Amino acid sequence: MSAPRTAPDFDRIRAAEARLAGHIRRTPLLNAPALDAIAGRRIWVKAEALQHTGSFKARGGWAAVSAMSAAERARGVLAYSSGNHAQGVARAAKAFDTPAQIIMPSDAPAIKSETTRALGAEVIFYDRASENREALGSALMEERGLSLIPPYDHPEVMAGQATTGLEIAEQAGEVGVHEADVLVCCGGGGLSAGTALALAETAPGLHVRPVEPEGFDDMTRSLASGQRVTNARRAGSICDAILTPTPGDLTFPVLQALAGPGCVVSEDDALRAMALAAQHLKLVLEPGGAVALAAALFHPSACAGPDVIAIATGGNVSPEMLARALSRGTEPCATGEGTAA
Amino acid sequence: MSAPRTAPDFDRIRAAEARLAGHIRRTPLLNAPALDAIAGRRIWVKAEALQHTGSFKARGGWAAVSAMSAAERARGVLAYSSGNHAQGVARAAKAFDTPAQIIMPSDAPAIKSETTRALGAEVIFYDRASENREALGSALMEERGLSLIPPYDHPEVMAGQATTGLEIAEQAGEVGVHEADVLVCCGGGGLSAGTALALAETAPGLHVRPVEPEGFDDMTRSLASGQRVTNARRAGSICDAILTPTPGDLTFPVLQALAGPGCVVSEDDALRAMALAAQHLKLVLEPGGAVALAAALFHPSACAGPDVIAIATGGNVSPEMLARALSRGTEPCATGEGTAA
Repeated sequence: MSAPRTAPDFDRIRAAEARLAGHIRRTPLLNAPALDAIAGRRIWVKAEALQHTGSFKARGGWAAVSAMSAAERARGVLAYSSGNHAQGVARAAKAFDTPAQIIMPSDAPAIKSETTRALGAEVIFYDRASENREALGSALMEERGLSLIPPYDHPEVMAGQATTGLEIAEQAGEVGVHEADVLVCCGGGGLSAGTALALAETAPGLHVRPVEPEGFDDMTRSLASGQRVTNARRAGSICDAILTPTPGDLTFPVLQALAGPGCVVSEDDALRAMALAAQHLKLVLEPGGAVALAAALFHPSACAGPDVIAIATGGNVSPEMLARALSRGTEPCATGEGTAA
Repeated sequence: MSAPRTAPDFDRIRAAEARLAGHIRRTPLLNAPALDAIAGRRIWVKAEALQHTGSFKARGGWAAVSAMSAAERARGVLAYSSGNHAQGVARAAKAFDTPAQIIMPSDAPAIKSETTRALGAEVIFYDRASENREALGSALMEERGLSLIPPYDHPEVMAGQATTGLEIAEQAGEVGVHEADVLVCCGGGGLSAGTALALAETAPGLHVRPVEPEGFDDMTRSLASGQRVTNARRAGSICDAILTPTPGDLTFPVLQALAGPGCVVSEDDALRAMALAAQHLKLVLEPGGAVALAAALFHPSACAGPDVIAIATGGNVSPEMLARALSRGTEPCATGEGTAA
């Protein structure tokens, strides 16, 4: 890849936007009175679960593959991913007739590995607890001459995810929202940082707040302490899409400068947010794609002002997990800041 | 109401479109490779479940209330509805500060009556099997001086629903689809007829095909026989949104001229389509909102050509019914034309 190892500037983000045009959906910004009533403010949901491949990762995948030279594309690409980035890279690789190999944790939902294979990619599994996917990826890359497309620490991937922020700036403006927190489900920080970079230029009143699940709040703690910290656990959450050990090299400085503080929600918050998204937005979310909406709904004191924007980042969930969330949504709430409303 | 008792002409449809601008979502036209593989052709899903109130009925409700005089609006509106039209009328009435009374069958899902009440309307229940809602509505209308907004046999309601067709014409054109069947979940025929009128002017290669559940196929049989016939049953299907006894006075002639033949699917088809919509489109559908997609998926021989468009008309479903569909979707298929693929 010819891209420098720095965060993308705004020209690179606009260039990615141009390459994505016609290949990526402009997902809607949804709202529902019932959700506003729970939160005590208007909640605007950027529905990236409706994106091609079921998550925003189709943006970064397309941005990265489309930025490669024809010679690089002919040799092929490699990605490590819990599943959503895999599908995004696989879809783009297929469109550009590029061979794709994907390194995926063995605990990824079957729907993600199956869909990645259906997109023509080869899937290689690794153990999330005992193996280092970056080391595995580097070895394969050198051995086979593939171009590595990492899930977040890459300027073109970040530029692709940043197009979500360009759309949010436009869509929030259309509904008269110019000042609000933008809650973003956060793993390594590619979407959070990309969105923050895009909003800094196009809607400076919109402010990114990374949201993470309990036990995997490396970004929140890193932003609070001013240095990158690591999670004690590597696996063991239903929020499989956003379990990364530590903030990215490129993403963390961007978020230090433009975003935060972070926000942490429970797995139960995520399940209840999934149930409410299905009931009131008609939107299927995966647990890791629902944590931002969960923060908006159940932790209203973490934000201020009459509006909040939450990116619903993905919907690649098994029927069983979705049914579990629906069942949880019909039970009374035992705890939770926002549940007395 | 000052509107004549005739189907809307194209000027009336364009006028409704102008009044709806900014108040109604332009819902996306979604697709997924996995659905295309099942059907053996490309399936394009117009996601009206993502419309305000969770169904396309928000269009007709807004068109009708916005067409009334200020004096009419001050007296109030009345609607009879299984729930989706109720919400559409209630939302519009609330926005125009108009009192709304809704006559709803006692077997309507609780989510629909609750949401209608949350929108500020008064709900009056009737028994679907033993009472005639039209007679009940007429009596209330005369007694209280309310304007009746029927669910389909009304020129402004049909013009509002027709805006779905205007959007389909544009969105299909954007993806290069100019010849295709447009499968429409059909109750009284307001959306089917409105869409057919809109497409006749804007995309004459797109052809409306009403889709109904088994046992409630009055439109399909009426189109086949050339005269309006009535269903033997009035209730007893999970497809509560589209159980009407007979085609409308205004809608049937339009569909005779511009649409058909109809298509009939089973309840099991609808449940399996709901499961696939959740898995691959991240879209929550109600049974009555899934029959068009079910026809596209499981009755491919009913259509011809490389593309088919299905309107996913609504998503107001209980968590229990959605969980039932998800459970059904993971079981092997015992029967079904398209299931061998």
